[in-house]
Amino acid sequence: MELKEVFKNRRSIRNFKSEPIDMELIQRLIQDSILAPNAGNEQPWKFIVVSNRDLINRISDDCKHNFLQFIKANPTSPAKKYEKMLSNESFNIFYHAPVVVYILGNAGKRNLVADCSLAASYLMMSATDKDLGTCWVNFGMYIKDSTIREEMGLNDDLQIVAPIALGYPEKIPGIPVRKEPQILKIIE
Amino acid sequence: MELKEVFKNRRSIRNFKSEPIDMELIQRLIQDSILAPNAGNEQPWKFIVVSNRDLINRISDDCKHNFLQFIKANPTSPAKKYEKMLSNESFNIFYHAPVVVYILGNAGKRNLVADCSLAASYLMMSATDKDLGTCWVNFGMYIKDSTIREEMGLNDDLQIVAPIALGYPEKIPGIPVRKEPQILKIIE
Repeated sequence: MELKEVFKNRRSIRNFKSEPIDMELIQRLIQDSILAPNAGNEQPWKFIVVSNRDLINRISDDCKHNFLQFIKANPTSPAKKYEKMLSNESFNIFYHAPVVVYILGNAGKRNLVADCSLAASYLMMSATDKDLGTCWVNFGMYIKDSTIREEMGLNDDLQIVAPIALGYPEKIPGIPVRKEPQILKIIE
Repeated sequence: MELKEVFKNRRSIRNFKSEPIDMELIQRLIQDSILAPNAGNEQPWKFIVVSNRDLINRISDDCKHNFLQFIKANPTSPAKKYEKMLSNESFNIFYHAPVVVYILGNAGKRNLVADCSLAASYLMMSATDKDLGTCWVNFGMYIKDSTIREEMGLNDDLQIVAPIALGYPEKIPGIPVRKEPQILKIIE
């Protein structure tokens, strides 16, 4: 696909087919993602791939629970707007995607968020190029359940940056309205 | 350009032609960059474009000075490895690029670093697609000089995420060695 088509076609997908994805294809996305630029060529990104339906559901339930607790403790936070959605028992934070790819790295590492975000961007574009859909789901970071953390190999030295839901899109939404870019100053 | 060519051809460029870039073309890159996904569709990115050679040189000198002070104060920091390079008076942190695009936003905003990094990724790919070269130059964040900050409109409410050197590449280097991706776990 031409880059400009990828720019146009890459949408955050919230409606996935249940169709599974070949593990080989997922690995190709990851191979593309590590072509991203990164600070000092340190390539700090690591990956965890979850395609187990039961585990994905349990992660979703745990993250919903933890995020709702956060809202309860911080009732004036802007996060409050998500309370109703997350309180819906049938809501799955990953929109029932068949796969979730976690991009993460060593906790507190300088530039980790920027570097993993760049890798995430490459992964999402590569997915679009292969007719897959993605959604970066921030809620997916709030994993506390010790059983789940152990199953995933998530120890406290690791910091999640990008939980990416991945699957074949059921429906590709239009592009949400973009504001005109705020160019604060041009100094010629 | 096909996405896979962009992935292959996008290199961090450290050798630019002095040839200027049409402001219209820079604006097209910025228009592409705001197609990036972002948390809650808040589009927190803002831009400052500097194509004034004298100002770029002064930013470079100020950032070198400030980063060297940091190294002096933190002699055991891994940043120490940059001391020799930054002490070289003729070294320009932007590699004499004719343009520097700053991507920034409101200081401390949740998800700002991730969102601006995604925009940076789009901008760098769009540049590659138009035969331009880029380099994300972290040193370019360390602007302290009050005159420069005022000229740029950089007040303390703004946080720089991505200083991107931009220009026509003199030389496109090969891809630096990539480690095999660290897939910590696949849970099927």
